Amino acid sequence: MAEELRAAVGATQLLTDASVVASFESDWTGRFRGRARCVVRPADTAEVAAVMAAAARAKVPVCVQGGNTGLVGGSVPVGGAILLSTARLTALEPVEVVSGQVTVGAGVTLAALQRHVRAEGYDFGVDFAARDSATLGGLVATNAGGERVLRYGTTRAQVLGIEAVLADGSIISRLGGLPKDNTGYDTMSLLTGSEGTLGILTRLRLRLVPLLTERAVALVAVDDVAAALSLVRTVRNRLPSLEAAELFFADGLALVRARTGLSAPFAEAYPAYLVLECAGRADPTDELLEALAGSEAVRDATVAADPRGRHLLWSYREAHTESINSAGVPVKLDVAVPLTALAETVAALPATITAACPTARPILFGHLNEGNLHVNVLNATSEAEAVTDAVLRLIAAHGGSISAEHGVGRAKRAWLGLSRSPQEIAMMRAVKRGLDPEGLLNPGVLLDSA
Amino acid sequence: MAEELRAAVGATQLLTDASVVASFESDWTGRFRGRARCVVRPADTAEVAAVMAAAARAKVPVCVQGGNTGLVGGSVPVGGAILLSTARLTALEPVEVVSGQVTVGAGVTLAALQRHVRAEGYDFGVDFAARDSATLGGLVATNAGGERVLRYGTTRAQVLGIEAVLADGSIISRLGGLPKDNTGYDTMSLLTGSEGTLGILTRLRLRLVPLLTERAVALVAVDDVAAALSLVRTVRNRLPSLEAAELFFADGLALVRARTGLSAPFAEAYPAYLVLECAGRADPTDELLEALAGSEAVRDATVAADPRGRHLLWSYREAHTESINSAGVPVKLDVAVPLTALAETVAALPATITAACPTARPILFGHLNEGNLHVNVLNATSEAEAVTDAVLRLIAAHGGSISAEHGVGRAKRAWLGLSRSPQEIAMMRAVKRGLDPEGLLNPGVLLDSA
Ligand SMILES: Cc1cc2nc3c(=O)[nH]c(=O)nc-3n(C[C@H](O)[C@H](O)[C@H](O)COP(=O)(O)OP(=O)(O)OC[C@H]3O[C@@H](n4cnc5c(N)ncnc54)[C@H](O)[C@@H]3O)c2cc1C
Ligand SMILES: Cc1cc2nc3c(=O)[nH]c(=O)nc-3n(C[C@H](O)[C@H](O)[C@H](O)COP(=O)(O)OP(=O)(O)OC[C@H]3O[C@@H](n4cnc5c(N)ncnc54)[C@H](O)[C@@H]3O)c2cc1C
Repeated sequence: MAEELRAAVGATQLLTDASVVASFESDWTGRFRGRARCVVRPADTAEVAAVMAAAARAKVPVCVQGGNTGLVGGSVPVGGAILLSTARLTALEPVEVVSGQVTVGAGVTLAALQRHVRAEGYDFGVDFAARDSATLGGLVATNAGGERVLRYGTTRAQVLGIEAVLADGSIISRLGGLPKDNTGYDTMSLLTGSEGTLGILTRLRLRLVPLLTERAVALVAVDDVAAALSLVRTVRNRLPSLEAAELFFADGLALVRARTGLSAPFAEAYPAYLVLECAGRADPTDELLEALAGSEAVRDATVAADPRGRHLLWSYREAHTESINSAGVPVKLDVAVPLTALAETVAALPATITAACPTARPILFGHLNEGNLHVNVLNATSEAEAVTDAVLRLIAAHGGSISAEHGVGRAKRAWLGLSRSPQEIAMMRAVKRGLDPEGLLNPGVLLDSA
Repeated sequence: MAEELRAAVGATQLLTDASVVASFESDWTGRFRGRARCVVRPADTAEVAAVMAAAARAKVPVCVQGGNTGLVGGSVPVGGAILLSTARLTALEPVEVVSGQVTVGAGVTLAALQRHVRAEGYDFGVDFAARDSATLGGLVATNAGGERVLRYGTTRAQVLGIEAVLADGSIISRLGGLPKDNTGYDTMSLLTGSEGTLGILTRLRLRLVPLLTERAVALVAVDDVAAALSLVRTVRNRLPSLEAAELFFADGLALVRARTGLSAPFAEAYPAYLVLECAGRADPTDELLEALAGSEAVRDATVAADPRGRHLLWSYREAHTESINSAGVPVKLDVAVPLTALAETVAALPATITAACPTARPILFGHLNEGNLHVNVLNATSEAEAVTDAVLRLIAAHGGSISAEHGVGRAKRAWLGLSRSPQEIAMMRAVKRGLDPEGLLNPGVLLDSA
């Protein structure tokens, strides 16, 4: 085995020293730990295929790790798996200007991709805070979301092609970037969001979007979730330039102000707030103001177009994570419900949470347009399991998703049945069995190994 | 078997009379014919599941037929299959205004969907000429394209949920319409474009787009494909309102003018032409004119915003099909190449075609932004197979797709290996085996039955 792996990646890229391997055995959150027999760092698709073929012959499982920023434990090796790091798959091909596409290695970080394509007047449709570490392979494997899904969709919508190594070591390569190609099953979309359980992504063909530099941000006060939804519907249909619509509440604002010293955004206090951002080639301030004027849901609003002003308005939303963390270690859940159930869910969450843990202090914020709520629960670490269970059950009862953005990984596997029916899980198992009959790829992630 | 089917759908919806069954045994083109043992017309998902369960017990194949407008023979039953018609799955649920979504039965026609959602200020992102017969089940099963893919993507991008019956008769139902839901494999996207070989779609949750009534159309003369591409790139990045960019050439225009009596669009003749359409809430004429003024590729241009003028400019493109048909029975191919290979492919096609058939007269037109060419070849019926083979090989040599829009069906199965590698075909087979181990769903469509 070791011999074959050494032959596959070269002696220097097979790491077996316990202290080196240890640095790959836990994740960003520190919540998940495991054990790898070794780490391999292949340089290209052929080397990945050689590793996988050797693993398949020996029936040894393989765990794929990109930036290791995933929040559900999917990149942590268990049971002595081979840890395959994509850290050396960092090729950046030239931007293809005529089609607005680029091909990159799976180990390229989001930040490196952004620098590469912005130099050519393009941008990537997905962005989020872990950009300096998170890799494109990880983004595609988890179908990452972020704040711009409203405009550009999730990572899935940016994927035009994939090169990958399957569980038997075979390579599939589909990097032509054809936006229309109806020659059989969409195996690319199947690999997207499969969390390393169906194939190892090695190269990606990505759709780019125009780089938009003219921006305007509004902070808007509203009465409740229903008002926020009606505002976003109005604004969204009128403004193709709308890029983000982020929701937060009075209690979150209070925490943020206490932590950051930011002043109150408005003379009066309101129950709920939205940050809206528009971006275009021309300054979108006027159209944003006009759209706000056209909605009766707006109780008060302030708009900024200059970088400092925009940054300030965004801080009310973006400082939530840090302000919550500084108040304690929160239980963090990332869920979504249909928009028709959002107001009701937000109303029901506090009582649901305090029933599971009377001391708990829930703070909510989220991506409004997708019904995506980040549920943060302070003073509840001792009852984390009970709180998680109660929240996920409430979400499921409203037809929601127990994981809007982060995936299932190891963390949410036990609750998968809340979002997927037995028939759907059976269908997923049939796909897994078809493509990885020996269960070698990321066993225990997403589906249990049974 | 007959007894079980009767129990499943009711006696009146099991059709066995030979002359009635015959009307389901050939397709819109008349090129494909087969034989069905009977036709069943279930009324809802439960009835479809009962039919499929009976078929699975008896190991009898099932062929799904929607509007029967598919152009590759996928909806034609062979070998005495049960023909399952979706004609009665026509439920139209109310438009959900807050999310811009709707759930419809798989047998609803595209035109019926359009009427239903336009009444609420929404529209559907896909449109094409077969709208009065083509069903949403057929659109999703073939991932249909059309002229608005540039703006809204193919049908895949409109699908937010699916209810379907799998080969074992089990029902999977996922109609919540969550735009963010990372709980496992994207089985919905896998069913989309699977041409009835992985499951029978019964209900669909669809994303709607705002109904845009203000429109402007430009007919633009350019020197060649490279100029057309540079024009579209400029215009597309500047105009979020751009909806269509259709390409045709001097020879096609001549045929159209001869057939329709339309006058020459410009004082001079040019090698290539583009029809561009913009749509928005405000009149997009000025922004379209401005964008055209900003491109050096424009040799001449004419713009219309009134319905009659727009219709006239569109006719130069839309009359192609009819004008070609009136000049003979063409061999019709629907292919795509990467944009970087488009000019070269268009240049190479005539010689490739006449080498296969010296009398042949190729006329090309297409959806420029996706590199999607409709290759029509007149005077070549006797050499249809040779012409098809030569064109598809040329396309494959340029990294293209042998079926951009219509799917593989029975018609292109023999050429699938030109667009998909043996490894990819093995992967598709593994998925098919996992989900339909007995090969009961549309055998012989897409993959051969072996
Ligand atoms: C501060 C912070 C903010 C975040 N914000 C967001 C956000 O807004 N939206 C969001 O969606 N997520 C967010 N995340 C989660 C995380 O960043 C994303 O899930 C990211 O896509 C993971 O990328 P990675 O390279 O770190 O993957 P890893 O953590 O290394 O792996 C994640 C999963 O993908 C698999 N994988 C990784 N690479 C490959 C590959 N090449 N082939 C096959 N499988 C592979 C792994 O096996 C694992 O199952 C955030 C995380 C942090 C720490
Ligand atoms: C005049 C004309 C213009 C056209 N223009 C375009 C165009 O611009 N773009 C384009 O993409 N196509 C076009 N087409 C092709 C065709 O209309 C589309 O493929 C359409 O989506 C087929 O829908 P249908 O209901 O007629 O499906 P059918 O022809 O009945 O079936 C097509 C395939 O889908 C399967 N299927 C149908 N319903 C279901 C279901 N409920 N569940 C599972 N499988 C199912 C069938 O088994 C078959 O394999 C055109 C056709 C015509 C005749």
